[in-house]
Amino acid sequence: MENPGYSSGFDGLHHPSDDDDDEMVDIAGATLDFSTTDDVPPLSSGGYDEYSAGSSSRAAGMNGSGPTKLVDPLEDPLPGVGTYEDFNTIDWVREKSKDRDRHREITNKSRESTVALLHSVSDAFSGWLLMLLVGLMAGSLAGGIDIAAHWMTDLKEGVCLIGFWFNHEHCCWTSNETTFQERDRCPQWKSWAELIAGTAQGPFAYIVNYLMYIFWALLFSFLAVTLVRAFAPYACGSGIPEIKTILSGFIIRGYLGKWTLIIKTITLVLAVSSGLSLGKEGPLVHVACCCANILCHLFTKYRKNEAKRREVLSAAAAVGVSVAFGAPIGGVLFSLEEVSYYFPLKTLWRSFFAALVAAFTLRSINPFGNSRLVLFYVEFHAPWHLLELAPFILLGIFGGLWGALFIKANIAWCRMRKTTRLGHYPVIEVLLVTAVTALIAFPNSYTRMSGAELISELFNDCSLLDSSQLCGYKQPVNTSETGVDNNLADRPAGAGLYTALWQLALALIFKILITVITFGMKVPSGLFIPSMAVGAIAGRLLGVGMEQLAYYNHDWLIFRGWCSPGADCITPGLYAMVGAAACLGGVTRMTVSLVVIMFELTGGLEYIVPLMAATMTSKWVADAFGREGIYEAHIRLNGYPFLEPKEEFEHSSLAVDVMRPRRGDPALAVLTQDSMTIGEVETLVESTHYSGFPVVVSQESQRLVGFVLRRDLLISIDNARKRQDGIVSASLVVFTEHCPAQPPEAPPPLRLRGIIDLSPFTVTDHTPMDITVDIFRKLGLRQCLVTHNGRLLGIITKKDILKHMAQIANRDPDSILFN
Amino acid sequence: MENPGYSSGFDGLHHPSDDDDDEMVDIAGATLDFSTTDDVPPLSSGGYDEYSAGSSSRAAGMNGSGPTKLVDPLEDPLPGVGTYEDFNTIDWVREKSKDRDRHREITNKSRESTVALLHSVSDAFSGWLLMLLVGLMAGSLAGGIDIAAHWMTDLKEGVCLIGFWFNHEHCCWTSNETTFQERDRCPQWKSWAELIAGTAQGPFAYIVNYLMYIFWALLFSFLAVTLVRAFAPYACGSGIPEIKTILSGFIIRGYLGKWTLIIKTITLVLAVSSGLSLGKEGPLVHVACCCANILCHLFTKYRKNEAKRREVLSAAAAVGVSVAFGAPIGGVLFSLEEVSYYFPLKTLWRSFFAALVAAFTLRSINPFGNSRLVLFYVEFHAPWHLLELAPFILLGIFGGLWGALFIKANIAWCRMRKTTRLGHYPVIEVLLVTAVTALIAFPNSYTRMSGAELISELFNDCSLLDSSQLCGYKQPVNTSETGVDNNLADRPAGAGLYTALWQLALALIFKILITVITFGMKVPSGLFIPSMAVGAIAGRLLGVGMEQLAYYNHDWLIFRGWCSPGADCITPGLYAMVGAAACLGGVTRMTVSLVVIMFELTGGLEYIVPLMAATMTSKWVADAFGREGIYEAHIRLNGYPFLEPKEEFEHSSLAVDVMRPRRGDPALAVLTQDSMTIGEVETLVESTHYSGFPVVVSQESQRLVGFVLRRDLLISIDNARKRQDGIVSASLVVFTEHCPAQPPEAPPPLRLRGIIDLSPFTVTDHTPMDITVDIFRKLGLRQCLVTHNGRLLGIITKKDILKHMAQIANRDPDSILFN
Repeated sequence: MENPGYSSGFDGLHHPSDDDDDEMVDIAGATLDFSTTDDVPPLSSGGYDEYSAGSSSRAAGMNGSGPTKLVDPLEDPLPGVGTYEDFNTIDWVREKSKDRDRHREITNKSRESTVALLHSVSDAFSGWLLMLLVGLMAGSLAGGIDIAAHWMTDLKEGVCLIGFWFNHEHCCWTSNETTFQERDRCPQWKSWAELIAGTAQGPFAYIVNYLMYIFWALLFSFLAVTLVRAFAPYACGSGIPEIKTILSGFIIRGYLGKWTLIIKTITLVLAVSSGLSLGKEGPLVHVACCCANILCHLFTKYRKNEAKRREVLSAAAAVGVSVAFGAPIGGVLFSLEEVSYYFPLKTLWRSFFAALVAAFTLRSINPFGNSRLVLFYVEFHAPWHLLELAPFILLGIFGGLWGALFIKANIAWCRMRKTTRLGHYPVIEVLLVTAVTALIAFPNSYTRMSGAELISELFNDCSLLDSSQLCGYKQPVNTSETGVDNNLADRPAGAGLYTALWQLALALIFKILITVITFGMKVPSGLFIPSMAVGAIAGRLLGVGMEQLAYYNHDWLIFRGWCSPGADCITPGLYAMVGAAACLGGVTRMTVSLVVIMFELTGGLEYIVPLMAATMTSKWVADAFGREGIYEAHIRLNGYPFLEPKEEFEHSSLAVDVMRPRRGDPALAVLTQDSMTIGEVETLVESTHYSGFPVVVSQESQRLVGFVLRRDLLISIDNARKRQDGIVSASLVVFTEHCPAQPPEAPPPLRLRGIIDLSPFTVTDHTPMDITVDIFRKLGLRQCLVTHNGRLLGIITKKDILKHMAQIANRDPDSILFN
Repeated sequence: MENPGYSSGFDGLHHPSDDDDDEMVDIAGATLDFSTTDDVPPLSSGGYDEYSAGSSSRAAGMNGSGPTKLVDPLEDPLPGVGTYEDFNTIDWVREKSKDRDRHREITNKSRESTVALLHSVSDAFSGWLLMLLVGLMAGSLAGGIDIAAHWMTDLKEGVCLIGFWFNHEHCCWTSNETTFQERDRCPQWKSWAELIAGTAQGPFAYIVNYLMYIFWALLFSFLAVTLVRAFAPYACGSGIPEIKTILSGFIIRGYLGKWTLIIKTITLVLAVSSGLSLGKEGPLVHVACCCANILCHLFTKYRKNEAKRREVLSAAAAVGVSVAFGAPIGGVLFSLEEVSYYFPLKTLWRSFFAALVAAFTLRSINPFGNSRLVLFYVEFHAPWHLLELAPFILLGIFGGLWGALFIKANIAWCRMRKTTRLGHYPVIEVLLVTAVTALIAFPNSYTRMSGAELISELFNDCSLLDSSQLCGYKQPVNTSETGVDNNLADRPAGAGLYTALWQLALALIFKILITVITFGMKVPSGLFIPSMAVGAIAGRLLGVGMEQLAYYNHDWLIFRGWCSPGADCITPGLYAMVGAAACLGGVTRMTVSLVVIMFELTGGLEYIVPLMAATMTSKWVADAFGREGIYEAHIRLNGYPFLEPKEEFEHSSLAVDVMRPRRGDPALAVLTQDSMTIGEVETLVESTHYSGFPVVVSQESQRLVGFVLRRDLLISIDNARKRQDGIVSASLVVFTEHCPAQPPEAPPPLRLRGIIDLSPFTVTDHTPMDITVDIFRKLGLRQCLVTHNGRLLGIITKKDILKHMAQIANRDPDSILFN
C-alpha cells in the first residue's frame, strides 16, 4: 500500500495554513485534523484553558498548558502547543496526564455548584453514551452493508421482477408461488439469460449468464477502485494494520475520517459483491473505528485527548468484530489480544457494552433473515472422539503452513507492487484480478458463491433432508431393517458428493492462489473470510475422507467402539470449522479471541478443545517460519513505528548502544536553561531535524533540566516575535523560573518555562535495552533521555529502538520511516 | 484476619538459619521458601550461574548475577543476593530482566548442540506442561471437594445403609426400589431420626434430626477451625485478597504452600458441609493457586523467578473460577479483571488452556452427576421484554446497596475482631456462629439446603411437572378450552408458592445478617455463593411478584401485548439469576467476568443484556458508597502494599511532595562510590532501616550512580569478612569499575560493583504523582529515586505512595504495614 500524504508529514513544522490533506473531516464544527493551529487550537478552546488555569500546583507541569508562577502573558497556552503533527507518535504519558488534570478540575468544581455537578456527572457518563452511539452506528452500518452486499451479489446472477431491490431469497419469499422444496426457484426471479436470451437452459444461456457475471464483477470492482482513488485513498485494504499502529499512539490524519468512512462503506459493498476473494470482516473493524472517531467529536473529553480517543477506538475494534461475526465476547478479546495497545479495564467493560449494543442493533436489522446473531450458525449433534485430535492437529499444521506461506507470498507481492511499475496502475490491476477471478470462479459453484455462503455450507452438518451437493450421500436402503434410525448416521458417499469434492479441491487451489494477489489491492479487502474459506475447504475434504474411511473400515482398531455402523461418528462440518480456525489462526496468529469467536458460533464448550488444539498447532507451526502475523508484516512493510507488545526484546544491548549521538557523531544538540539567545536557539533548531531538545543547566555540567519539543519551541518563538515587544534575536531564552541578571541595555528575555517538560523520562546508560523497550511499551514514550552519573549523555527515540531491532534482525534499519 | 508470621518479616536481614516459618514446602527437593539463603540459593544452583556467566555484554547488569569486567572471585553471585525477604515487595523489572537473560542464554546455546536445542525446546514447552498439570490437579481437587462436600452435607441429615460413603442422591440411584416420581425417597437412605428413634415422622423425629443436624454442623466447623489453627493459619478466609496482593508482587511465605493446600482442601469441605453461610468458590481459587505454586517447583524457570511464577499464579486463578463455576472463559476474564496485576497476552492464552483442562477434568469426574460442566445449569425458554429492564435495574440497585452495606458491615466487624478480645477466641467464635446458623437454618428448608442447591432451585424455571414448592402454582383447569397448551405459561400462585415466598423472605433476612459475621472467620470461606444466594432470593421474590402482577393485570398498558393469558411472559428464574449477578457484582465489583460467567451458565447471548444492566447499575450504586470492592477493603484492612491498578490517582501532588526525606528530615542516607570504608557503610546501614541505599559519585555532587539493596550489601560484606583475606573495617567499599589509588599500606578494597543496580529508576522532583504512580504500577517498581537538575534529592517507595494516598483519603497512613 502506498501512503498518500506521507511527504507532507516530514517537513518540520506545519504552518497554520497548511491543510494539504484533503481528508479533514468536519463534524458538528469540530475538525478531525489533529494538528491545525488556527481553526481549533486543541488546548485553548472549549473550556479547557479555564480549568487548566486552576490547577496551580501543577504550575510547572508537563505540557505547557498550565500557567507558571511567573505572571507572564506569553506563558498561557498558545494555539498549537501540545498538539501533534501528522505521522508522528503521541506522548501517552502527557495525554493521560492532561486528561487527569481535566478530570481533577471537573471533580473539584463539582463541589461548588449544581451545574458543575451535573457537568461532572454528564462527563462521567459521556463515555457510556459514546459507546452506545458507536454500537448503534456501527451495527446499523454493518446491517446496511450486509443487505446491500447480499442484493448486489445476487444482481450478478439475475434480477427480481417484483422489485429490482429484492435479493434472490427475499424475492422468492415475497412471491407466493414458492414451495418449501424449491425455495430458490420462483418465477419472479429471472436470471440474466432468461431476461436477455429468453431461456434459462442450454449453452447460450450459460454463456450469457457467464458474461453478465463477469460484467457486473468488473463494474463493481471498477467503481470500487475508482471511488477509493478519487475520494479516500485510505479506504483501501483491511485497515487493521493501520488501526493497530494508530492505537499504539501514531497519528495518521484522515485515516479514520468522514470520507474514509463513507467511501469505505460503499466500496466495501462493491468489493464484496464483485466476487473478489476478500471478506468484509477486517474492513468492518475499520468502519467501526471511523464511526467511533467521528462520534468522538461530539464530546470534548474525547475530541481533545489522543489517549482517551484511543480507548474509544479500542472499543470500536471490538464492535467491528462483534458485528462481523455476531460474537461480542470474541470481539472484545480480539481487540484486547490483537489490536489494542493500551487497554485498561475500564475500556474492557465499555467495549463489551458497545459490542453488545452493536450485535443487538445488527440483529434487530436482521440482515441474514434468520434472527440469528451469528454469521455462521452451526449446530452439531455428535460429540467428537479423542482420536479425532490427530486429524484436527493435522488441520492445524495445514493452517500454520498456509498462514506462513500466505504471509511470505503476500508480502513479496505487495513489496513488488510498491517497488515496480505495477503500483502505478491500481485500477488496471484490480480489473485484471477481478476478470481472472470471475472467469475462473463462475464455472465452479463453490467459487461462484460468496465466501460467507461457502463457509456456511461447509460448516453445515448433513441431515437426510439436505439437498446440497455436499450432502450427496447414498440413501440408506431400508433403515428399519438395519436398525439405522438416526438420520445423521454416517453414510457412503454418492456421486453428488464425489463431484462436490472435486470442485472443492479445485476451489481450494484457486482460493489459495488468488487470495495472495487480492489482499493489498486498492479496494477494501478483509482476510478473515478467504482464510477461513481455505481452511474450511481443506477441513471438509479431510472430514469427508475420514468419514468414508470410518464407514468402510469401521472394524479397524482405531474406529472400533465409536464408529459402529449407523453411528454418527464423524462430523465433516466440525472438521471444516476446525480447519477454518486453523487457517485464520495461521494468518493472523490470533489465539484466544479466535477460539472464543468460534465458540460463540456454536455455543458448545465441548468443541473448544478441537479448536484449541488446531489453533495452537497452527500458531506454533506458523511461528516456526516467522513470528509475524499478516498485520505486523504489513505494518513493517509500510514502515510504521510500531513496537510489538507481544514480542520480548531478546538482545543483550544496553541503552548506551542504541542512543544518539553514536560514538564519533557530533555532540547532542541541547539548549541551556538561561544562557542562549533566540538567535542561537533558532540556528540550532534549524540546523537539525530533531523533534525535541533537552534543556540542561549549562553546557559544561550537562545536568538535565527538562525537555522541550521543537514544535512548541518554534510556535512560541514565532508568536513572541509577532506579539511581544522587544523580542529580538539577541533576547535571552529563559527556561528557569527566575531570570538571570542581565545588563540593563539587554532586550527583555523570552520566558519559556511554560513549554518545557520538567519531568522527562531518563534511563542510565547501563540500562539493558530489554528494560528500556519495556518502559517504552508500557508507558507509551516517544523518547527517553540517557544519563550517566547524573550527566546527560544522549537520547533514545522510538525510531532508534525500531531501527536497532531491525538491525538485530538483519533488516534494513531505514525501513522505519516515522518517529 | 490476623496475619501470623508478620513479626518475623520485619527484622531486617533474615539470617541463613532463620526458618521460623513452619510452612516451608518441599516438593521434589525444592523449597517454597522464597528467601532462605542456605538450602536453595536461588541464583547459584541448577544451571543458572553457568549461563549468567556467559552473558558478558550484560557485564554491568542489573542484578549482580552477572560477573563484571573485574576478575574478582567475590563478584560471583553470592547465595541470597537477589532474593527477597518475607513480607516484602519484589522488583518486577529485575525479575523479568533475569528471566530474559536466562532465555537469551538458552537460545544462544541452542545453536551449539542438540542437547542444548532439546533443552531450549523443553524450556519453551515447560510453561504449557505446567499449565496442563495445574489444570489436571486443580480439576481433580475440585472434583474431590465437590464429592466430599456433597456427601458430608447429606451426612447431617442421615446415612445410607448400602454404604455409608454414598450421598443421598447416589444412595437412591444405587437402590433399585426408587421410582422416578420419588427420586429422593428410598428405603436405603435413613434419616438420623429413623436410625435413632425408629420413626421418620412426628415431633420427636424432628427434634432428633434437628439435634443431629446441629451436632454435625458443630463437629465439622470445630474440626475445620482446629485444623486451620493447628496446621495452616493461612488456610482461612477466601484467600483472594492475599492472592491479589501476592500477584501484585508481594511475598507472603507459605501462603501458597503444601500445608496450606492440604489443610485448605480438607477444611473447605468441612466448612461447606457445616452449613455455614459460605461458599467454596473463593477458596477454590486459593487451592488452585497453591497447586500452581507447588507445581512451579518442578520447573527451574518458574521456581527461580518470582515474576514468571506470578504469571502461572494468574493462570491458576482462572483455573480456580473455571472449576468453581464450570466457566473457563469467565474464569480467564475473572483473573484478568479482578485478580491479576501483570497479565501479558501469553498468560491469557495459557490461562485459557489451563482453565479448559481443569473444566474437562472436573467434568470427567462428574461430581454433579449430570455430565454438565456448569455449577448451575439453567435453560430458559421465554425471551425477556424490554419493559422488564425496569425490574432488572431495580435488582441492580438492590445488589449495589447490599454490596456497599455488606462491605461496610463486614469490614467493621472484622476490624472489631482485630482490635477487641473477640479475635482471641476464634474457635469459640466459629462454634457460636455455627450453632446460631444451624439453629435458625434447620426449620426453614431454604436455609437448610446448601447455598448452591438453593441457588440452583431459585434459578430453575418452573414447568408443569416440577414438584418443588417454588413451583406450587395452581394447575390450569382445562387447558384445551382456554387454548393454553404451553406448559410454561404463567399461572396463578398456589398455597405452596405462598409458603415458599414466606420462607424465602425469612431466608433472605437471615442470609444477609449471618453472612456479614461469617466472612472473615478462621475457616475457609468464600463469598460468591452467599452473595448470589441473597441476590437470587431477592430476584425470585421480585420475579414471582411480577409474574402474579402480570397474570392478574394482563390488561394493564405495560403488560398488554406480551402478557396475554397463557403466555409465558415472566420467568422468575431469570430474575433470580439477574439478582444473583447484581449482588455478586455489588460485593466484588466484577463486571465483564461476572456477565461472562453467567453467560456461560445459560449459553444464551440474549440474557446478557439484563445481566449487564443489573451488573452495571449495581456497580454504580455500590461505587457511590465507596469505590472499594470487598477484596480491596480486606487488603486495606490488613495493610498490604497494594497499588490498585484500576483506580486513577486523582490528586495533583508532585514527586517532591511525596519523597523522603521530607523538609526538615535528616538528609538522605547515601553511599559514595569509592570513598567509604566498610566500617562507615556498616554504621550507616545499622543506623537506618531502609531496604536500599542510593550510591552517588560524592557527597558534594550528589550525582547518582546506582542503587544497592540493604540485603545484598549486608550479605556481601558478611561474606567478604568471612572468606576474603585482609578485609577489615577500614577497607574501602568500591562500587566503581576501577579502584581509586590508595596508599600502599591500606587494606585491600572490597569491590561491590556486582551487587549495584546501575539502572535505578529516576523521576524528577517536578514529576506529577499521577505519572509516578503510573510508572510504579506499570513497571512494578519497589522504589524510585528523585532527582533535580541531575542531583539526587530523595527516594519514593511503594509504601510512601500508599501512605500518601491514605493521607489524601483521610485515612491513617500508618495502616500501610509493608513495603
